[in-house]
Amino acid sequence: MGGGPIGMEMCESFTSLGMEVTVIEMAAQVMPYMSPEMAARVQARSQEEGVSCILDQSVQSISGNADGTVAGVHTGSGEVKADLVLLAIGIRPVSKLASDAGIELGEKGAIAVDANMRTSLPDIYAAGDCATTTHAMTGRQVWLPLGSTSRKQGRAAADNMFGSGVEFVGVQGTSVVKCFDLTVGRTGLDKTQAREAGFDPVAIDIEAESLHEYYPGRGIIYLKLLADGGSGRLLGAEVIGQMRSIAEKRLDVPAVAVAARMTADDLQYLDLAYAPPYSIAIDVPIIAGNVMAGRIRTEECGCGPFGLD
Amino acid sequence: MGGGPIGMEMCESFTSLGMEVTVIEMAAQVMPYMSPEMAARVQARSQEEGVSCILDQSVQSISGNADGTVAGVHTGSGEVKADLVLLAIGIRPVSKLASDAGIELGEKGAIAVDANMRTSLPDIYAAGDCATTTHAMTGRQVWLPLGSTSRKQGRAAADNMFGSGVEFVGVQGTSVVKCFDLTVGRTGLDKTQAREAGFDPVAIDIEAESLHEYYPGRGIIYLKLLADGGSGRLLGAEVIGQMRSIAEKRLDVPAVAVAARMTADDLQYLDLAYAPPYSIAIDVPIIAGNVMAGRIRTEECGCGPFGLD
Repeated sequence: MGGGPIGMEMCESFTSLGMEVTVIEMAAQVMPYMSPEMAARVQARSQEEGVSCILDQSVQSISGNADGTVAGVHTGSGEVKADLVLLAIGIRPVSKLASDAGIELGEKGAIAVDANMRTSLPDIYAAGDCATTTHAMTGRQVWLPLGSTSRKQGRAAADNMFGSGVEFVGVQGTSVVKCFDLTVGRTGLDKTQAREAGFDPVAIDIEAESLHEYYPGRGIIYLKLLADGGSGRLLGAEVIGQMRSIAEKRLDVPAVAVAARMTADDLQYLDLAYAPPYSIAIDVPIIAGNVMAGRIRTEECGCGPFGLD
Repeated sequence: MGGGPIGMEMCESFTSLGMEVTVIEMAAQVMPYMSPEMAARVQARSQEEGVSCILDQSVQSISGNADGTVAGVHTGSGEVKADLVLLAIGIRPVSKLASDAGIELGEKGAIAVDANMRTSLPDIYAAGDCATTTHAMTGRQVWLPLGSTSRKQGRAAADNMFGSGVEFVGVQGTSVVKCFDLTVGRTGLDKTQAREAGFDPVAIDIEAESLHEYYPGRGIIYLKLLADGGSGRLLGAEVIGQMRSIAEKRLDVPAVAVAARMTADDLQYLDLAYAPPYSIAIDVPIIAGNVMAGRIRTEECGCGPFGLD
């Protein structure tokens, strides 16, 4: 139950153990935080490995056998027989200790903290999956519990307890997950979030190989880039690639560029590490910058690139 | 002859063909553009593979046999017998066609171009290994011929021929090379270049594994980071890692951060793509940011971190 990152990771584990796997997801796609066309690639790859996907269906009940074992899962579209049901339907923060102590809770019931990781009570700090954080791009309180964020928050909390005054700048929603041989990642805002934050989002999609055709071991990479049509500012990216294509490397570059408030033009001229064993001469994020910069110029003048049409 | 990137790449190729290889380098280290301790790692790894290194010696002559084949190479420290001599001692731009046409040459005899890739003659553009470029951090004309730069210059030249007015921002000296199973890369300024450009360079070195100890396939990564002690601005980075450690990924992150004029504090809070198959929870460049930020604070107050001593 649940076709998010944990559910899709577990598809690989269960399949490798020889189990028949069915994913039931209430959204109309697996990986609901990815764009539909990216999610479709994850679904197709999982189906190739024998995974069945039931989408757009909530679980109504789980039935059991007389001996206490599971019998099946019931949705609006019928029953799925099952010997084992894994619930990967999300998590909640454990913040009762804090709220019982009179500490204010924030987004999704997580402990509310400021940029110094201070709670509403003096000398009490919170960090990690129990605490809120700030979205660095929108300034909004969010709850995005991830191991990498927890560690940064923990360090910031400790620094502040010792009086450093450092501010944790927050998160920008970067994540990556391995599903079979696919790397699936994202950073920044999606189109809906970008519009809510007052941007005019423009998206481009590219498909490229990770290495030149003469070099062995290359893999395909799909990269989606989102920028603000008015300013050209980069807003986010999504990536899917085969493990051997080092797709996460092509996500970290736009992740840093987004944090730095770079534009599509800036991305075009990044001086990245190129040699044939590592990338193509103009690496995937730079191609995306080229395409995005051209798209924005075209939309500005309402004609072909550079007004020549 | 020559222990630079081409020479050291060829060590791997020749060794894999069963040849006995000796590198003769006039500098006191192989990879003269890397810091001595990083270069020593490349030398040690090459020696493990059977390569001999003669450093700090210029070649005085190459002797031949009566049949026209090579017999040996002579340096101040004696003769090296040889059946084949590879010269990997640098390159020069082919710019005579341009200079004959009255076009001005610049750094190292390459064709001088401006940010629009225009030469000194109207309507004549130049791009690629024959042309100069600008160092994005110092503003100085440099000649740094690399495939990735050539392609960006070519695109900028074409854009400008069609009237776009885009400016090529120049390069920051990023490069990477594979030598046996090591990835050897750099970006930005080194200490000497940083001092010449008016910065007060502070360097830190870290050593980390690419993945957590429970995940298979991890490798070691050495990362050196350079920042300005006054402002904290990141100035450059060097990396060495085993191929499987994806060290070039840990170079591209500081490469983008340097381009964005980020500080060590900014590097600490980057939201990079983390999951166990891809990196450690606080990835190597972020650890380097932590160490650098602490170092700069310590030097500012002349005491322990955060003034606590």
